[in-house]
Order: sequence, then structure tokens, then C-alpha cells
Amino acid sequence: MQWMLTEVGVLTQRPSKPGPKQLADGWVRLKVHYCGICRTDAKMWHQGHRDLMLPRVPGHEIVAVDAADRPVVLWPGTACGTCRYCRAERENLCDHMQIMGFHFDGGFSHDLIAPAASLIPIPAAMPPHLACLAEPVGCVLNALEQIRLRPTERLLIVGGGTLGLIAALAAQDLKAKPIVIERRPEKIHKASPFLKCAQLTCLPAPPREPFDAAINACPDPAALQQAITLLVRGGRCAFFSGLAPTPPLGNSEINLLHYKELTVIGAYGLTRRHMAAALALIGRYPAELNLLVESILPPETLPELLPQVLAGGAFKYILDYTGRHGC
Amino acid sequence: MQWMLTEVGVLTQRPSKPGPKQLADGWVRLKVHYCGICRTDAKMWHQGHRDLMLPRVPGHEIVAVDAADRPVVLWPGTACGTCRYCRAERENLCDHMQIMGFHFDGGFSHDLIAPAASLIPIPAAMPPHLACLAEPVGCVLNALEQIRLRPTERLLIVGGGTLGLIAALAAQDLKAKPIVIERRPEKIHKASPFLKCAQLTCLPAPPREPFDAAINACPDPAALQQAITLLVRGGRCAFFSGLAPTPPLGNSEINLLHYKELTVIGAYGLTRRHMAAALALIGRYPAELNLLVESILPPETLPELLPQVLAGGAFKYILDYTGRHGC
Repeated sequence: MQWMLTEVGVLTQRPSKPGPKQLADGWVRLKVHYCGICRTDAKMWHQGHRDLMLPRVPGHEIVAVDAADRPVVLWPGTACGTCRYCRAERENLCDHMQIMGFHFDGGFSHDLIAPAASLIPIPAAMPPHLACLAEPVGCVLNALEQIRLRPTERLLIVGGGTLGLIAALAAQDLKAKPIVIERRPEKIHKASPFLKCAQLTCLPAPPREPFDAAINACPDPAALQQAITLLVRGGRCAFFSGLAPTPPLGNSEINLLHYKELTVIGAYGLTRRHMAAALALIGRYPAELNLLVESILPPETLPELLPQVLAGGAFKYILDYTGRHGC
Repeated sequence: MQWMLTEVGVLTQRPSKPGPKQLADGWVRLKVHYCGICRTDAKMWHQGHRDLMLPRVPGHEIVAVDAADRPVVLWPGTACGTCRYCRAERENLCDHMQIMGFHFDGGFSHDLIAPAASLIPIPAAMPPHLACLAEPVGCVLNALEQIRLRPTERLLIVGGGTLGLIAALAAQDLKAKPIVIERRPEKIHKASPFLKCAQLTCLPAPPREPFDAAINACPDPAALQQAITLLVRGGRCAFFSGLAPTPPLGNSEINLLHYKELTVIGAYGLTRRHMAAALALIGRYPAELNLLVESILPPETLPELLPQVLAGGAFKYILDYTGRHGC
């Protein structure tokens, strides 16, 4: 079975159609084992997305097995391999980029076809469901690379959801000094087992001392504004989460970029290299990251999970296509 | 005589007071020969400025002579020399930065005191009034350095005023391919002698092909928005001109930074190194840059010039303290 988004707001369950009998060159057939639910999946269900082409099977945080039963994660794209971006190892910006779950069908399905070039093997020792985090972790690694985060630097992370907490773990792994800011006490409370296990700090309001670098890890425009305001002169901010339409950033806040010679760098998606690095990071912190798995549930539960994911209070929901995990 | 801004909107002429008889260590007395009028001078007169401390003698585009009658330009600041920014040769961001004409008295005056460390000698062959352009040219060089402009890259410059045209000349000198966009036909017309002399292009609307890099050279928020919109994925934008308070940039335009992995880098002021490089650039293009001098006028004319500078239709006005140039 698979979930098809036929129009914004309308998910339909139907039999899986894993592509034509004869696949195009370089494409392979896979069995999905797990697929994480991203907030972007919930957003495209709720309001659409600039890169979404309907009808579409969403899902891009996929753990699957190939014909030889080898577990893999999927870099969620196809790239031409020859454009200026591909040649510069920035294939997430490829001139002909097609995103899995956006432009072609993704992982909310028992079966799947995908470019063989997108398969990245999962280390044998890793609990396979955890590998669903390779995509979000890789997106975070892209953002930290864009701002060239260095050891000992103070990193401000605005937003204490799954992505903000992953960013803190990844920054600490780089020997930087991350601090997560989360204004909702219930989210700090929810994060506390992870924070304790990873020895990380999440505060309801930022300390006074400014930060060398920052990342906005929630769509509230106030998060980006706070990041800009709290940076040292010459500081760098990863623009990681797209902004909600309102409220608009004020021009006087934007002018701080000018006056403080700040650098704001967009980070959108990830490359294969980031995804492989993400698997390595997950391998170093399986216990910590497992605390960011909200629940592993049967595929049928997707429609009831999407509103929760959209509301933002939960960690990572993972759909189980193996039948191993009950409701 | 000197012009003192006693409060926003109030300029008063009074006898020059070139500081105390006994100067602080490292400060020297100078005679002003020329001082350019910057749009920021007009803005601080009209509406104040975040870095302005009143009362103040404005003016920071200064050509002066020292006690031995050697012509110099002045890097318009004082920097501590020891903070993280000074050690990194980013003294424009110094922890203890004081800007000439903002925090301490500037060049709209016959006499001046300034830190000896700020003096940069003018090459003998250069017409001295042209050296007033060293400060704005150096600010442009800072911006082009921030975005790491490389040969053959297409640079979009939004705004065809003095600064935008200087940016085009400097970019061409770096062997990049600049195109200036200016929507007001009268400004393109006014720029045409310069454009012809420098073999540069200024268009009323941008061509379709996107740009590798961009710079906003006017305070209209639409200029920054246009720069962001017309950049290639992974492109870089120098945030050179602070934005007017309205209209606000829309969040959907700001989100392009995220989706296209753009880099926006603030550029504010310049370092001594940029100013020395600016003098070298002026030395290579004296005829071209002389076409950006609107007029050289006696100091008494300042009050009538400020509204024109604020309105933005003129090139560079230069006040003459030598008595050589008539009205």
C-alpha cells in the first residue's frame, strides 16, 4: 500500500505501484522498511510546497532494502552529475534536481523505485529505523558546513525541536559550544532526556554573551531575527528553516546584517556526502538519537500523525513497513 | 570655520577648533583640503544615524595635509589594534571602533585632529580632490572582497548612483562582468559619460540570465529583493546599502536565501587596507572617476547641498577648503 497526495489536503491510500516493469537505466526497485515523517511532509499536505508536483507519494526519510536485501538509506534526489553544481559537489542545487517525495514518488509506500546512485549502505551495527534520521541529520551537517563552524565557537540554535537538538549534537561533535534556545517550557521538558544523555544545554532565553554563529531551527521569523540580533560582528547565521509568511522581518533587524557585517547562508537539503557523514554521526550517538524517535508506527497511522507533526510538539515519527512494530 | 551638527536637522557654522593645544598620544593636527559629502552625512543631518553622537562635525571623505604639507587621506576611524577584529585585519568591526564624523569630529572643517595611524599618503601624481573618493571606493572594495568576486563572474549592481557606478568600475578592474541596473532614465542619462569612458553597461531592467553575485547600491528594499531574486543558486550578495524603513522585504523573498542556498554578506565601512587599495584603483582610473565628481564647491554651500545629496540625483559633491575652486 502507499499514500498518495492527490491534492493539497487529500491523502489517499492505494495499492503500491513500484514503477513500470522495465525500469529506466540506473533505477532500481526497493522495499521500504521505514520512512520518517518530516515537518515538510506535513506542510506539503497542509498547504503545498514550492517544489511539490501533484499527484505524489510523499516521504523522503527512507530506509529500504535492495534486491539482495542490503539495507540502505536514500539520498532524496536525482542529480544530473554534469552541471556546475554537481561538478562542485553541491548536487542538492543541481540544475536538473528532482526531489524524492516532491518531484517523484517517495517512501510512504511498501515499494519504491529510486536512482541506484542515491543508495547509501547502512552500517550493519546500526538499528535500521535510526537510519531514517540520516536525511535530517545530513541537512543539519550541510548547514553547519555552510557556516564553517569551528571548534570552541559559540553556536546559538533557536528552536528546541528535533532539528534544533540534532544541530546541537552535531555542533558538539565538532567541538563547538552549542546552546539551544526554546521558549516553550513543555518542549524543554520533553527534550530533557536527550539533553541529559547528550550533555547539552537548552534555555528558555538566550544568555547575554553574543554568539559566533547561529542557526534558525524553527519557522518563526522571530527565531531568525533573534539569531541575527545575538551574533557578534562578523558572525555567521545558517538560514536553515524557511520562514512562515508572517510576521515580516523588520527592515531595521535586516539592517543588522549590514551594520554588523554578518553573513547569512541558506541551507536547503543535503548532498550524498552529508548523508554518509550523517550515518557516521548516528553511529557515534545511537542512544542519544534514539531519544529523538517519538514512535514507530504502522503506515495506516499517517493521516492522524500529520496534524501532530505540523503542530510541532512531537519528535520524529517513523512509519514501519516491516510489520515488526505494533500500534 | 567648521560645520557643527548640534541636533538632527540643525547645522551651525562656527570657528574651527582643532582640538586641545596638547594632543593625546598618537593624534596629529591636520589642515583639511577637501571633504566629499556622503549620502550618510545627508542622512544623519536629516534623520540621525545609529552611530552618531551629537554635537558633531560631520565629514569622513577627507583629503588633508600634515604639518610637513604631505597630502593624505584619512581612514575614518580609530581602532584599538588588539581586539579579535583588529588582529584579523577587520578593524572596521573593532570592539572600540569610533568613526570620524560620527563619534568624533570629521572633515567639514578647516582644521582637524586625527589618529596618526589613520593617515594614508596620497600618490603625488593624483589630483588631490580625487582622493576624496578613496573612502567610498574602499567601501566598495570591502563589499566585493566579502563576496569573493572572481574573474568572469557576472555581477549585478542594483542602483546607478555614484556607489553603484564605482562598484561596476571596481568589478571590471577585477575582470568580472558587472551590469548596473537603474530604473530611472534620468540617472542612466547622467551616468552615460562615465559609462562610455569606462566601457560599462547600465540597463533600466535586468537581463534574464541570472547572476553569480550581486550588490545593492541603493537604500530601496526593492533593490536587495531584486538582487536576491536574480542570483543563481549558491550566489552571493553584498548587503552594501542599509535599507530604508519601508516597504518591508517579504518573507517569501527572504526565503529565497534558504531555498537557493544564497549567501548575503554585510559590508559596512572599510579597513586601512581597502583604503590603500582604493587609492591604487583611483590611480588607474582618474579620468573615469573624475566624471563622478558633481562639483567642487566652497564649504559655505554645505547646507544647500545636503538636500540634493539626500535626494540622490547628484554625483559626488566635494567641499574645497583650499580656496582654489570658486562657486
